[in-house]
Amino acid sequence: MNKPYVLGIDIGGTNTVYGIVDARGTVIASGAIKTKKHEIFNDYINELHEEVTKLLVANDAVGKIFGIGVGAPNANFYTGNIEDAANLQWKGVLPLGRTLEEKFGIPVAVTNDANAAAIGEMTYGAARGMKDFIMITLGTGVGSGIVCGGQMIYGADGMAGELGHTIARRGGRPCGCSRKGCLETYCSATGVVRSALEFLDAQASVPSLLRNIPSDELTSKDVYDAAKAGDAIALSVFEFTGRILGEMLADFAAFTSPEAFIIFGGLAKSGEMLMKPLKESFEANLLSYQKGKIRILLSELKEADAAVLGASALGWEAKPSTPA
Amino acid sequence: MNKPYVLGIDIGGTNTVYGIVDARGTVIASGAIKTKKHEIFNDYINELHEEVTKLLVANDAVGKIFGIGVGAPNANFYTGNIEDAANLQWKGVLPLGRTLEEKFGIPVAVTNDANAAAIGEMTYGAARGMKDFIMITLGTGVGSGIVCGGQMIYGADGMAGELGHTIARRGGRPCGCSRKGCLETYCSATGVVRSALEFLDAQASVPSLLRNIPSDELTSKDVYDAAKAGDAIALSVFEFTGRILGEMLADFAAFTSPEAFIIFGGLAKSGEMLMKPLKESFEANLLSYQKGKIRILLSELKEADAAVLGASALGWEAKPSTPA
Repeated sequence: MNKPYVLGIDIGGTNTVYGIVDARGTVIASGAIKTKKHEIFNDYINELHEEVTKLLVANDAVGKIFGIGVGAPNANFYTGNIEDAANLQWKGVLPLGRTLEEKFGIPVAVTNDANAAAIGEMTYGAARGMKDFIMITLGTGVGSGIVCGGQMIYGADGMAGELGHTIARRGGRPCGCSRKGCLETYCSATGVVRSALEFLDAQASVPSLLRNIPSDELTSKDVYDAAKAGDAIALSVFEFTGRILGEMLADFAAFTSPEAFIIFGGLAKSGEMLMKPLKESFEANLLSYQKGKIRILLSELKEADAAVLGASALGWEAKPSTPA
Repeated sequence: MNKPYVLGIDIGGTNTVYGIVDARGTVIASGAIKTKKHEIFNDYINELHEEVTKLLVANDAVGKIFGIGVGAPNANFYTGNIEDAANLQWKGVLPLGRTLEEKFGIPVAVTNDANAAAIGEMTYGAARGMKDFIMITLGTGVGSGIVCGGQMIYGADGMAGELGHTIARRGGRPCGCSRKGCLETYCSATGVVRSALEFLDAQASVPSLLRNIPSDELTSKDVYDAAKAGDAIALSVFEFTGRILGEMLADFAAFTSPEAFIIFGGLAKSGEMLMKPLKESFEANLLSYQKGKIRILLSELKEADAAVLGASALGWEAKPSTPA
């Protein structure tokens, strides 16, 4: 094949990771730059272009890249733009796809990070062979990628799949999106910390390892470690988190009737502490004819590779944009 | 064209309506039988076959039917079966598609009634030209048909689109599906009656026209008439119904980011009484970047025609089943 590789780029709030990937999903070479370093978007693109070019040269891959696939927060598949991403320092609408295409002279396809993860999982991971599944990413926030009949659901505006912003508790916790009670205020890493602080406050007489940590320094990892050590409050936080997530996944199941949910991201590594209450609550809340039929699976992709692999899989679909 | 017509069949709990439809969506002729009349499913199919055949003969349409499309409660697009429909007298799994195909010798495509309505709306109604919309049917229950990227969403098992059974109020009103708080316990015709009875009870000192009607005879039409006459409790029932529906549609918008919702069915005829609180609550609950961008439209199909037209549109997609 003339152009045997794709380039996958995963843009996160802190780091940008990129890799040269072949048709079998092998990451030939990869690298990373700091997303946060540049105040000006074009400076960031320039550094990314320089560093990626070095990687291409070092791996004899210049001229061999079929397409570039990018996963980025709030990225729009249709326009190739990043639109008001809360966790990036550049505000407003950023013409990511067009800028990269001009810079590299290679077709670019862009989507949000959770969609990229879903495409990666479908191409190389736990969702291989599935036509109907929902990817749930449990990180700082809660993201999702929805696949129906083998097609990624992009919606009328390219922004579908914001399941982290469906309402878990009406009138509940304030969310960064300016509304209240969103799923991600409960079932993200930050949601776990909020639950822990609430529970510590509400059960002031119950001893807990978490009381040794200043509240503004508490992380979901601390809650995990305490739960592992048998801390009652930390354990009840995971129980609570899993229960809410299970309730919501049951609602999502009524929506698109998927074959499986694939759980990905930091919190997914909590193991049975999260998965047990999650699965119990999911089964208890499903419509009767769906009970026992929908699987909840953990991602099969290494977290370090998943985003790059997912983005790269999109690179095979990239088409040159028509001049405006 | 050799076979210029399709046959559309809409199976409801009370009546079954059928029509011969041409490629432009004109209903050439139609008829109806009582669904409820037959205790045995095959007796029902026999009468349906007899009556439809008479209609075909009378309209010189014998041998001119390209395919049969059927909308039926709890009908599965993949299997052609009706599966445990709560509002039909025949229980368990009914091989509807296969039985009709054997009887008529014409390819049959089957889907649930809300999906059929969505297909009708996309082909002939308010959703013409739309690739991403959600049909919401407000009848005895709440049904839905979801279209993404121009494709009907059927899910892994053919049963997707049960938005009437997503949870509007966790731990809320008991639902026929054996769970609690489902959207249809609030925003269906029966939900309106339940709200009215609750409100009458909770506000015993407030006079209301509805107090003249025995509670077991109260219908949503009574509540509508009372609201039209300015009855405060009846008006607050529509306010409440619209508000909950708006909240839920905003959640659905975060899911598939549709261009529009199309509202259909008996309650949709309540006009501004329902639509005003619905639209206000919808806008208030949308994610900020979706505000003002997603339309809520009323169905453009005559209710008498919609189901038959929708089912008939599916008839053009019917393929002969392969022998088992």
